[in-house]
Amino acid sequence: MKLTPKVQEILSWYESDNPGTKANLARILMEGKLGGTGRMVILPVDQGFEHGPARSFAPNPAAYDPRYHFELAIEAGLNAYAAPLGMIEAGAASFAGAIPTILKVNSSNSLSTTKDQAVTGSVSDALRLGCSAIGFTIYPSSEYQFEMMEELREMAEEAKAAGLAVVVWSYPRGPMLDKTGETALDICAYAAHMAALLGAHIIKVKPPTEAISLDAAKKTYEKQPVAGIDTLAGRIAHVVQACFNGRRLVVFSGGEAGTTQAMVDMAKGIHQGGGNGSIIGRNTFQRPKAEALALLESIIGVYKS
Amino acid sequence: MKLTPKVQEILSWYESDNPGTKANLARILMEGKLGGTGRMVILPVDQGFEHGPARSFAPNPAAYDPRYHFELAIEAGLNAYAAPLGMIEAGAASFAGAIPTILKVNSSNSLSTTKDQAVTGSVSDALRLGCSAIGFTIYPSSEYQFEMMEELREMAEEAKAAGLAVVVWSYPRGPMLDKTGETALDICAYAAHMAALLGAHIIKVKPPTEAISLDAAKKTYEKQPVAGIDTLAGRIAHVVQACFNGRRLVVFSGGEAGTTQAMVDMAKGIHQGGGNGSIIGRNTFQRPKAEALALLESIIGVYKS
Amino acid sequence: MKLTPKVQEILSWYESDNPGTKANLARILMEGKLGGTGRMVILPVDQGFEHGPARSFAPNPAAYDPRYHFELAIEAGLNAYAAPLGMIEAGAASFAGAIPTILKVNSSNSLSTTKDQAVTGSVSDALRLGCSAIGFTIYPSSEYQFEMMEELREMAEEAKAAGLAVVVWSYPRGPMLDKTGETALDICAYAAHMAALLGAHIIKVKPPTEAISLDAAKKTYEKQPVAGIDTLAGRIAHVVQACFNGRRLVVFSGGEAGTTQAMVDMAKGIHQGGGNGSIIGRNTFQRPKAEALALLESIIGVYKS
Amino acid sequence: MKLTPKVQEILSWYESDNPGTKANLARILMEGKLGGTGRMVILPVDQGFEHGPARSFAPNPAAYDPRYHFELAIEAGLNAYAAPLGMIEAGAASFAGAIPTILKVNSSNSLSTTKDQAVTGSVSDALRLGCSAIGFTIYPSSEYQFEMMEELREMAEEAKAAGLAVVVWSYPRGPMLDKTGETALDICAYAAHMAALLGAHIIKVKPPTEAISLDAAKKTYEKQPVAGIDTLAGRIAHVVQACFNGRRLVVFSGGEAGTTQAMVDMAKGIHQGGGNGSIIGRNTFQRPKAEALALLESIIGVYKS
Amino acid sequence: MKLTPKVQEILSWYESDNPGTKANLARILMEGKLGGTGRMVILPVDQGFEHGPARSFAPNPAAYDPRYHFELAIEAGLNAYAAPLGMIEAGAASFAGAIPTILKVNSSNSLSTTKDQAVTGSVSDALRLGCSAIGFTIYPSSEYQFEMMEELREMAEEAKAAGLAVVVWSYPRGPMLDKTGETALDICAYAAHMAALLGAHIIKVKPPTEAISLDAAKKTYEKQPVAGIDTLAGRIAHVVQACFNGRRLVVFSGGEAGTTQAMVDMAKGIHQGGGNGSIIGRNTFQRPKAEALALLESIIGVYKS
Repeated sequence: MKLTPKVQEILSWYESDNPGTKANLARILMEGKLGGTGRMVILPVDQGFEHGPARSFAPNPAAYDPRYHFELAIEAGLNAYAAPLGMIEAGAASFAGAIPTILKVNSSNSLSTTKDQAVTGSVSDALRLGCSAIGFTIYPSSEYQFEMMEELREMAEEAKAAGLAVVVWSYPRGPMLDKTGETALDICAYAAHMAALLGAHIIKVKPPTEAISLDAAKKTYEKQPVAGIDTLAGRIAHVVQACFNGRRLVVFSGGEAGTTQAMVDMAKGIHQGGGNGSIIGRNTFQRPKAEALALLESIIGVYKS
Repeated sequence: MKLTPKVQEILSWYESDNPGTKANLARILMEGKLGGTGRMVILPVDQGFEHGPARSFAPNPAAYDPRYHFELAIEAGLNAYAAPLGMIEAGAASFAGAIPTILKVNSSNSLSTTKDQAVTGSVSDALRLGCSAIGFTIYPSSEYQFEMMEELREMAEEAKAAGLAVVVWSYPRGPMLDKTGETALDICAYAAHMAALLGAHIIKVKPPTEAISLDAAKKTYEKQPVAGIDTLAGRIAHVVQACFNGRRLVVFSGGEAGTTQAMVDMAKGIHQGGGNGSIIGRNTFQRPKAEALALLESIIGVYKS
Repeated sequence: MKLTPKVQEILSWYESDNPGTKANLARILMEGKLGGTGRMVILPVDQGFEHGPARSFAPNPAAYDPRYHFELAIEAGLNAYAAPLGMIEAGAASFAGAIPTILKVNSSNSLSTTKDQAVTGSVSDALRLGCSAIGFTIYPSSEYQFEMMEELREMAEEAKAAGLAVVVWSYPRGPMLDKTGETALDICAYAAHMAALLGAHIIKVKPPTEAISLDAAKKTYEKQPVAGIDTLAGRIAHVVQACFNGRRLVVFSGGEAGTTQAMVDMAKGIHQGGGNGSIIGRNTFQRPKAEALALLESIIGVYKS
Repeated sequence: MKLTPKVQEILSWYESDNPGTKANLARILMEGKLGGTGRMVILPVDQGFEHGPARSFAPNPAAYDPRYHFELAIEAGLNAYAAPLGMIEAGAASFAGAIPTILKVNSSNSLSTTKDQAVTGSVSDALRLGCSAIGFTIYPSSEYQFEMMEELREMAEEAKAAGLAVVVWSYPRGPMLDKTGETALDICAYAAHMAALLGAHIIKVKPPTEAISLDAAKKTYEKQPVAGIDTLAGRIAHVVQACFNGRRLVVFSGGEAGTTQAMVDMAKGIHQGGGNGSIIGRNTFQRPKAEALALLESIIGVYKS
Repeated sequence: MKLTPKVQEILSWYESDNPGTKANLARILMEGKLGGTGRMVILPVDQGFEHGPARSFAPNPAAYDPRYHFELAIEAGLNAYAAPLGMIEAGAASFAGAIPTILKVNSSNSLSTTKDQAVTGSVSDALRLGCSAIGFTIYPSSEYQFEMMEELREMAEEAKAAGLAVVVWSYPRGPMLDKTGETALDICAYAAHMAALLGAHIIKVKPPTEAISLDAAKKTYEKQPVAGIDTLAGRIAHVVQACFNGRRLVVFSGGEAGTTQAMVDMAKGIHQGGGNGSIIGRNTFQRPKAEALALLESIIGVYKS
């Protein structure tokens, strides 16, 4: 299947990557209802690890079954499905070739008192399970951030040699950041930029607020104000700029459960700001399937427009 | 020997595993008096490591001899016998082929002030000793939980490539959990779910109480209450649900010494809740052999009914 | 994209393979105009190695450019494109994700006096170039056949572990076989069967003639005659049977340059005999592109009917 | 399942082997209708490689399907099923745990003009496919015998370290031996003895004739005549003696197609001579299944008596 | 147990070897009735491989059982027992620690038309079986002599690093040597010297005759005649001289079956010539045990005097 000019342009940004990694990026970008547009909607299901099974799946018990998420992603026409080892193993053969998968190779949980993660998957696992990418979370600002970055570096190097793509979840948290700081615009842009600097092909961050958190950054933001900082689109555009001036794919998480309208509005902001899409977990799999499919259809509609 | 349809169905859940791992799961599931039913009773003897020899074996001195436990498991018609390296080495040749064994590859002890474990066996050990699986304990919530999960990840990948099964003991303990929290329903379900996410084939947890420990989880459990939470069967069913909606084998430990009736009642609750069986150490090998065999016969009777 | 029931059935034949290999088989089977039908047309361009550039490309000089072949395969809507290292390297980035590729990892040439091949690519090459499979040629009956089989064994094991598929070209030649023998029905079926025994996922052989070459086999073929041996369809059916009773994919090469009608008739025979498709090189890339596309369209039409 | 005293005695012969290898030998010896007796009937299906598909399977076309042979071995209550890589891969998941398998790791074919074999499987393959043993053929007296023995040595060492058993097919052929010599009593005993010296756990040879082939051996056989050399039982007893005085398992191939009575008579001779059983391929899978099952039942009856 | 001055002196010759190798040489030299004298009698049982089982064991059928040879060597009070893999495996556990063993790691057989050997054991095998040394045969003058020397080099290096001793059987045969040449004095001394040069710790050669075989050597032997060349003692002394002037252990094989007196006379010659002992196979294990023990007692008596 011929790639669209848009996808070919995106692949041209990754000029140091081998054809294997490019092919896996193309697989993700050409899949589903947004295939070929350069926009993506990805289903991530690592909530079970992060928050526990009941908080993740009790609102929609069908989602306890790992096959549910493969089916949801395929039926909704998404670009990819991301999950930890066990979730992928439980469906990778049944759905082989049916949707690109991203093996989430590190994970934290709510029983931890430290802002660290465990490496819970490998590049070999990703290859044997037919995944297109590995996914790795870093916590910039955490006391463990350097260890996490070093783990990422090592796994990313191995993944790229094997022709896989690397997706980085960059979630700032740590002693220097209060709750507001974690999603402040400067911090979000910084987190996205560091992921790009670490060699990520696809960067996942949270949608930023108007706050500027780092004292040292405030002067800059006053001197060179971000255009449209009071709109999500404006803030998204700044994050996109921070990702090599838009030459790295950046997607935004849906955050905590919200209304359908809120989700669609957020997609509009991301779309207008030039973001590459949404990565939405809880807000889809915690609804009944029909509602989830309707919501995803609406979000996809935004990105298609 | 032809597998029963029940065992064939269970093997189908492990669709990403190679035939070697499936064959070893089949060996465990087809062995003993419960062979073919999809239910299991397993004898674990890692008490000596955890609590010291006298606390483990003085009540029934015959149990100081490693061969005693092989014999007990075989005579009782159990599905498998699990123990650390030295215990397996001391009987693996005499009882070669007579019962599936699980090499417990990490161990803690009562002389430690930290909630960590030492890796004390390897996949190569398991192969040379003819084991069907490796067994690994994680302590979710411990300060060492991420290191333990990373050790498990590495050994599980190696074990699966060599056609072995992976049994994970998931025992929450750590700074966020008091005694009640360690067996609270939400924590137990979470611990079981994390073992599944880490790629376990068989998950071992403690039977949960009615308590809900994590503040963040309480809202969920209030909104979506667990049906029959006041019965063991109801709570077991929730843990089973947390194990990929029943698509991973989950067995429950017998806990501290109890009366025969208490043990049988617990098996009834596990059975009714859809758990896959019991893994009982102290409650068997600390009784005289005849009593242990009678108790195991009763428990097996429950699972057969 | 959901797999068709036909492709799902085909994947079920490969029950010992990991999901990665299944996904790559699915990619090939779901691609192009025959995607989902279980039939395939593959473009192989190893002629340059085998016969030299002028004998291969002078009839259609556009074909000297490696990109030409990627384009031909994509425009024609084929399932995959197979070529040696340099040819793949020369286009893998430009056409990343646009068509499944098969890295031909061994090659012979017309300057050799021995019936051997050189290993000219690796599994790592296939991964970095984003290939879905490795392709390997064996010459059953050659003095080097055992060495070739041993090389295949080693590379196939590595490819399968990395989630790649294995395509085996099985071309009998050697001291026991004259020109007739090389394509005799018994020899062709034997060559296909050996590829299956060596663990090939896709087997490529030449269309067999009516001849029976091996003296020791004549009695068998007299006693149990092949139904319809005087038709290509009947002979193809016998080869398909020799491939695990049709439980391995088998495709047939186009052979030396023929007329369009001859090529279409051959496809009809393969189709009727239950073969999985055609792998056609010279007969396409040596024609002007428009003619090649027309020919391929006709052949695809046969398999679609 | 407790081993019988007979099987325990047999395992005691393999005193230098680890418990893993003993467990796999026990699995083979405890399986099927002869389980526990120390006698075995094994189904080998490497005929397709050796003689081609039609000569192997045309007499009973159901046998083209690899699953047929698993089913035949299981239904007949045999001890094990031996086949090359592709045949095992095509059924190892469906029949996981249902019958011990032996991965035939080298193979020859009828298109070869040399008395050599190709290594076509590995110890890692055997582990991932859940096999209990590897099978390896040597051709004592061939120009390639030393290379074959060295390949066996290397693979046997690796197999034993991984807890697998080693089955050696010892088939003399080469420039010093005419057709009579290949099955002469002295040669057969010598071939069996060399397999034992090479560290085989189970030795497979052809039933010997009365001939003495090696000039240098004739004096010995005249001076110390073999008791009952004119009976199969007497000759079998001599081969058994050559296998460490009966302290290695030795089974005998069925040879070319024979009548049921001939097969049963041969089993009687093997049984009376103290051989450990039969390994019968062609004579079973080339008959309709019902006939094959009846023949196998008769042969098993002989060994049970 | 303190080493005798004699053994300490011998160990001092091996000054580049590590303490592990010295300890294993000491174990051999301190064992049995000759323990501490610097003289040795060794039992080699590789006849089964070289000549076949009947030619080796039919004269004394008890010898078919591998345990017989361990028992013979122990009862006779010998220094070591040497045999191929299977023979050692069949008794190494029962007789662990009871007698030093030498794993014969290459072997030829009477069905070969070439003067080569197969490598049939490894240093790892020797370690797992508790052997003190590896034994390796070279055929100086054979067309395969350089390959054999290279195999020896590689295995000897590995053995020495692992603290094992290396025993080299140096048996000249090949196109330049007729029957007389193979045991000619110049050839025998040359063969022993090459073994020493190849790094052997213990050298085994055949007792030399008076013949001088190599034309190029004749002049030398005429110019500098060997003192006492007409006596075995004189010829032995020349071979000892060729082994670094007596600073390498050299033992002599018993050759073909002879009378007791012949064997004792030979030992006397070896003893007087300064040889380090006898390595006697056929002449012991082909006699009834009582006779063998008596013969060995006589030979030991010679070396003790």
